[in-house]
Amino acid sequence: MFAPDGRLFQVEYAREAVKRGATSIGVTTKEGVVFVAHKNITAPLAVPASMQKVFRIDSYIGATYSGIVADGLHLVNVMRSKTQTHRMVYNETESVETIARDISEELLLATQYGGIRPYAVSILVGGVDKEPRLYEIDPAATVAGYKADAIGSGKPVADEMLAKEYKEDMGIDDAISLCVRIIKKVGDKQSISANNIDIATIKAGEGYVMFAPDKIGKYL
Amino acid sequence: MFAPDGRLFQVEYAREAVKRGATSIGVTTKEGVVFVAHKNITAPLAVPASMQKVFRIDSYIGATYSGIVADGLHLVNVMRSKTQTHRMVYNETESVETIARDISEELLLATQYGGIRPYAVSILVGGVDKEPRLYEIDPAATVAGYKADAIGSGKPVADEMLAKEYKEDMGIDDAISLCVRIIKKVGDKQSISANNIDIATIKAGEGYVMFAPDKIGKYL
Amino acid sequence: MFAPDGRLFQVEYAREAVKRGATSIGVTTKEGVVFVAHKNITAPLAVPASMQKVFRIDSYIGATYSGIVADGLHLVNVMRSKTQTHRMVYNETESVETIARDISEELLLATQYGGIRPYAVSILVGGVDKEPRLYEIDPAATVAGYKADAIGSGKPVADEMLAKEYKEDMGIDDAISLCVRIIKKVGDKQSISANNIDIATIKAGEGYVMFAPDKIGKYL
Amino acid sequence: MFAPDGRLFQVEYAREAVKRGATSIGVTTKEGVVFVAHKNITAPLAVPASMQKVFRIDSYIGATYSGIVADGLHLVNVMRSKTQTHRMVYNETESVETIARDISEELLLATQYGGIRPYAVSILVGGVDKEPRLYEIDPAATVAGYKADAIGSGKPVADEMLAKEYKEDMGIDDAISLCVRIIKKVGDKQSISANNIDIATIKAGEGYVMFAPDKIGKYL
Amino acid sequence: MFAPDGRLFQVEYAREAVKRGATSIGVTTKEGVVFVAHKNITAPLAVPASMQKVFRIDSYIGATYSGIVADGLHLVNVMRSKTQTHRMVYNETESVETIARDISEELLLATQYGGIRPYAVSILVGGVDKEPRLYEIDPAATVAGYKADAIGSGKPVADEMLAKEYKEDMGIDDAISLCVRIIKKVGDKQSISANNIDIATIKAGEGYVMFAPDKIGKYL
Amino acid sequence: MFAPDGRLFQVEYAREAVKRGATSIGVTTKEGVVFVAHKNITAPLAVPASMQKVFRIDSYIGATYSGIVADGLHLVNVMRSKTQTHRMVYNETESVETIARDISEELLLATQYGGIRPYAVSILVGGVDKEPRLYEIDPAATVAGYKADAIGSGKPVADEMLAKEYKEDMGIDDAISLCVRIIKKVGDKQSISANNIDIATIKAGEGYVMFAPDKIGKYL
Amino acid sequence: MFAPDGRLFQVEYAREAVKRGATSIGVTTKEGVVFVAHKNITAPLAVPASMQKVFRIDSYIGATYSGIVADGLHLVNVMRSKTQTHRMVYNETESVETIARDISEELLLATQYGGIRPYAVSILVGGVDKEPRLYEIDPAATVAGYKADAIGSGKPVADEMLAKEYKEDMGIDDAISLCVRIIKKVGDKQSISANNIDIATIKAGEGYVMFAPDKIGKYL
Repeated sequence: MFAPDGRLFQVEYAREAVKRGATSIGVTTKEGVVFVAHKNITAPLAVPASMQKVFRIDSYIGATYSGIVADGLHLVNVMRSKTQTHRMVYNETESVETIARDISEELLLATQYGGIRPYAVSILVGGVDKEPRLYEIDPAATVAGYKADAIGSGKPVADEMLAKEYKEDMGIDDAISLCVRIIKKVGDKQSISANNIDIATIKAGEGYVMFAPDKIGKYL
Repeated sequence: MFAPDGRLFQVEYAREAVKRGATSIGVTTKEGVVFVAHKNITAPLAVPASMQKVFRIDSYIGATYSGIVADGLHLVNVMRSKTQTHRMVYNETESVETIARDISEELLLATQYGGIRPYAVSILVGGVDKEPRLYEIDPAATVAGYKADAIGSGKPVADEMLAKEYKEDMGIDDAISLCVRIIKKVGDKQSISANNIDIATIKAGEGYVMFAPDKIGKYL
Repeated sequence: MFAPDGRLFQVEYAREAVKRGATSIGVTTKEGVVFVAHKNITAPLAVPASMQKVFRIDSYIGATYSGIVADGLHLVNVMRSKTQTHRMVYNETESVETIARDISEELLLATQYGGIRPYAVSILVGGVDKEPRLYEIDPAATVAGYKADAIGSGKPVADEMLAKEYKEDMGIDDAISLCVRIIKKVGDKQSISANNIDIATIKAGEGYVMFAPDKIGKYL
Repeated sequence: MFAPDGRLFQVEYAREAVKRGATSIGVTTKEGVVFVAHKNITAPLAVPASMQKVFRIDSYIGATYSGIVADGLHLVNVMRSKTQTHRMVYNETESVETIARDISEELLLATQYGGIRPYAVSILVGGVDKEPRLYEIDPAATVAGYKADAIGSGKPVADEMLAKEYKEDMGIDDAISLCVRIIKKVGDKQSISANNIDIATIKAGEGYVMFAPDKIGKYL
Repeated sequence: MFAPDGRLFQVEYAREAVKRGATSIGVTTKEGVVFVAHKNITAPLAVPASMQKVFRIDSYIGATYSGIVADGLHLVNVMRSKTQTHRMVYNETESVETIARDISEELLLATQYGGIRPYAVSILVGGVDKEPRLYEIDPAATVAGYKADAIGSGKPVADEMLAKEYKEDMGIDDAISLCVRIIKKVGDKQSISANNIDIATIKAGEGYVMFAPDKIGKYL
Repeated sequence: MFAPDGRLFQVEYAREAVKRGATSIGVTTKEGVVFVAHKNITAPLAVPASMQKVFRIDSYIGATYSGIVADGLHLVNVMRSKTQTHRMVYNETESVETIARDISEELLLATQYGGIRPYAVSILVGGVDKEPRLYEIDPAATVAGYKADAIGSGKPVADEMLAKEYKEDMGIDDAISLCVRIIKKVGDKQSISANNIDIATIKAGEGYVMFAPDKIGKYL
Repeated sequence: MFAPDGRLFQVEYAREAVKRGATSIGVTTKEGVVFVAHKNITAPLAVPASMQKVFRIDSYIGATYSGIVADGLHLVNVMRSKTQTHRMVYNETESVETIARDISEELLLATQYGGIRPYAVSILVGGVDKEPRLYEIDPAATVAGYKADAIGSGKPVADEMLAKEYKEDMGIDDAISLCVRIIKKVGDKQSISANNIDIATIKAGEGYVMFAPDKIGKYL
């Protein structure tokens, strides 16, 4: 399964699927974590709410993905049931890092054995435990924490903009605005609307909040 | 299993089988959901009722498919037994979205492991829970919700006509007429008759109703 | 396992084995169902009764097959034990459609997994439940109902003759005569005799009746 | 596993091994069944009795094989244990047809799955239940009944001689003589002796009787 | 796994390993069975007793092998534990033929399934039950009985000498002398000594007796 | 899986992935063990603490890795749960050598079986039991003890510097300084900072101590 | 898995890995068994004691290996746990031959099945039960006993020297000196020191004794 240079071909190919996925962005601020994700909706009769890109994993944890839709939804389910099980067994919430590492083990297995393909998604999982946190897991199962990070087709441009404009002390509203501006830049500008963007925030005390379309409008 | 560009060859090939299947259409209206499906009956002595394309999944949920017949019938069985089990365990009906995601996990598995082929069907599953809903699941296991959607060989033309003529406030009879007009356009016009079209509606209060051939005539 | 055009090669190849099998015909009439099957007996010392082509599945259900002999006999056994189990569990006979769909699931499995070949048979299963019914299952596991249908090497000619000469109100004796005439046409005319044809009828009240050779003579 | 023309290559190749096996013949007469089998003994110090070709399966059932020795002996063991189990469970002897179909299922499995090779033997199984019966099972698991039949390298010549000289009303001694004459013709004439022929008869009332070498002499 | 001519390539190749093994000979006489086996010892510091070629299987059964050493020792272990189990379950010794057929089933399995290689040994198993008996099992799992037989690299010459010089009424000492003479002929004459020959006899009443080197000297 | 020269290709390829990993160094001194590891952080918004390279395995054992991130983290988890289990079962800490051999068995399995790929990491595991100890395990599962050792892309240079400058009687601070100097040499000099170096020490009495960034500064 | 000439390619390739391993020697004398093994230590900071080549298996049994390190250590573990289990079950020590044959079965399995590679080690296992004994097991799982034997890269030269200079009545000290002289000859002469040689003796009454480096000096 290794190529002579030590790369796993199937994993590299799976990354290509991620590179074609619509862009998702996660940002940590002092108040909490922001997720903004572009939904690549081309069918005029599609129901935007059904093409969810940002998901509640637990009361203080959310996630978004880029890549093969079914892989992403499946891993969201896995993360949800892992956190639920943890709650029932230990009567406490898992830390964001723990759920990031748990789901990474799931992706790792799919790169180790011959009869299964790697997952073709990158995941951003974030939330507030002791402080706001954000992790990326990629098809090679690599986990890394970021203050702000992007996945999907717009990643190169988005990472550059985040590096330039992200500030640790920015407010959550500014963070959302920055993300929306990035999505507008990397997506097809005309097409960005309250219907094809998912926005969610996770703040200490308030927990995971998914924005209704009418709350999204003001950021566009 | 991934090609260098991140596509899953077997899934792409399975889509080709779907593209050769007879067209099925689903439409949501305020009153409920409409399914109209073309049955590609070429044998003169075939029994139309035996070549069912639209199926009752539960009292308020129906489904149709395009692609390999046996795959479609098998997944209909799986959806039926999943909803039945859910009823028995939780004493409540699953939401349409839940059954769409459940069956999507079934299709996903068939794209992940080496010893099994993907399913070569697209499915439309729809019904009324809090409101009328319609989902498409394709061979890659992607789930997406639509106000109106088509699958099978006529999809490109059908999607275009739906985009132009579908109105959210159209009555259920108008929705059926629109679907029949589309089927007539994408199928072989001469051959459309009460015998090679399945029509079913799911309305709040009334539930899933499959039309007998004599009820179909007036829409042709 | 899929070819780029969405066909399953192994299934297509299995169909070729069916196309070389001796012809079997099933016909529904108002009185019941008729099966007539050609037995391709080339060995002069073969015992015709041992090369059965039409089988009793249950008191009101029969079946015939074309293709690989051992596959056909195996599936007949499976159908018999499924109907028996159903009887014991539910204290009622399965409908013809149910047994057709059950056996179709068996054939479907053999097209989905990597370590098993498809079955190389087409099956006609028919009987009388609420009314006379006849279903064909092919190597792709497709199930379809017919008023009259043929499988095996003579299918193209047989289907054409059935389309022309079959009448829904024909008597059972006329149906048998029509089938025998077709078998004579598609087989080697000289070789048709009471020894290389199986005839069985399933009538309401009377159930499955296999014809002894002396009863066959008058139709030749 | 199927070739484009619907043949199973591995099964066709297994038939070639059968075509190289020493000839075995089975004949039914009114009195019972006769098995005569040639033992291809080339080693001068071989113990003929140890190279058995005709076997007692049950008190009224016998069998012979042509092809790979170990496959033949294994299937003889399987048939013996199946009849024994049947006896113990049902307190009755299986019919000859039942044991023929049972062993056929064993051979069929070996043609369906990827990780196993087909059996490279043809089997003749015969006996007396309601009347004398004889069945052939080949590597494709096909079962067929015969009045008289041959397997192995001499099959083409043997079948021709049986077709010409076999008579349904012949006595058991005449049947043996005919078989021996055939074996002499298809084998190496010089080498036929009481030591390299197995003869067994199964008669109603008398059951399976294997001939000792001194009883064989008079037929040579 | 079959080649087009019906041969199993892997089995044929395994035979080649047997053809390179040192020669073993078994001979039956009226008094009992003799095993004489050449030990191909090239290392001057090897401990001859550790390179055993003739083995006690049970009190009245012995065996020798030619081919891959580890395969031979493994099958000796299997035979020993089979006879022990038989003893414990039935409180009687297995017949020589039974143990020969049992071990043959073990070798057969290794020729039938895809994930295992055939055993690369031939085995001679012999002993005294009702009378002295000797069986050969080869990599194809073929079992055959012999009055006298050889396996390994010297088989062609040994079989010829046995055919010429073996006499059924020869004494056990003459049998040993004959075997030693053959081993001397097929092996490297200079190298034959009490250290690289195993001799064992199995006589009624006396059972299996392995010769100590000082008892071997007189036959050289 | 072996190449003709006895090398395992997949293992050799896995080594290439290790050779591209950031450098980690372990050093034993009389006072204890030092780990210094370079974190190859290219993203400006990455959270250094989340890209951990040195890990606490147990109170007196630590580890670092170079190679595929997910493989490294997985093996850290395995080591942690092995030591925990050992504690619970035996109420004592495993020796450093035992945990090194245990994890080596995990890597070995991945080089022996067909359906799994080797791990693409080298691991340094060290700690204080009776005295300070340090072991390296590579993708071939080789375990070896070192006074000082490096893994990853800088290994050739690092090993050379260690050989020249390492002294058994050096203090722990000198050891850290040496390691940092090596990391500076093999990494990109400009990029070395308190944020992309992990430093940990394990001393008798004090146990595993991970350095906070402010404690790292003085060594740079 | 067999090549046409009856060799197992993977086993032959595994032997190549053994031929590259550092040399190990075992010698039996009247007093007991001697193991001397070269440790191929190239890294100057390696801890010689951690690269053990000679191992205590049980109180009166030791072993050494040449070839892939991880395979050798794994098999040492297997031997240790087998002897321990034997002790606990039977309350007695296994004989040296038994443990040699047991570990040989482990190596044999790895040459028989498709999904596993052979072990790439040769093993010398020796000890004192009734008398001093020494066995070699190679990648083909062949077991053979020797008075004195060598494995690894120096085997051809070592075997020649042993053949010339070994004497059955030599004292244990002379045996050690002989082995050290051989290691010096086959290894890189300059590099032989108390640090890269393992020496152990097993004497009746005294059991397994591993030499500390200071005891080794006098033999160099």
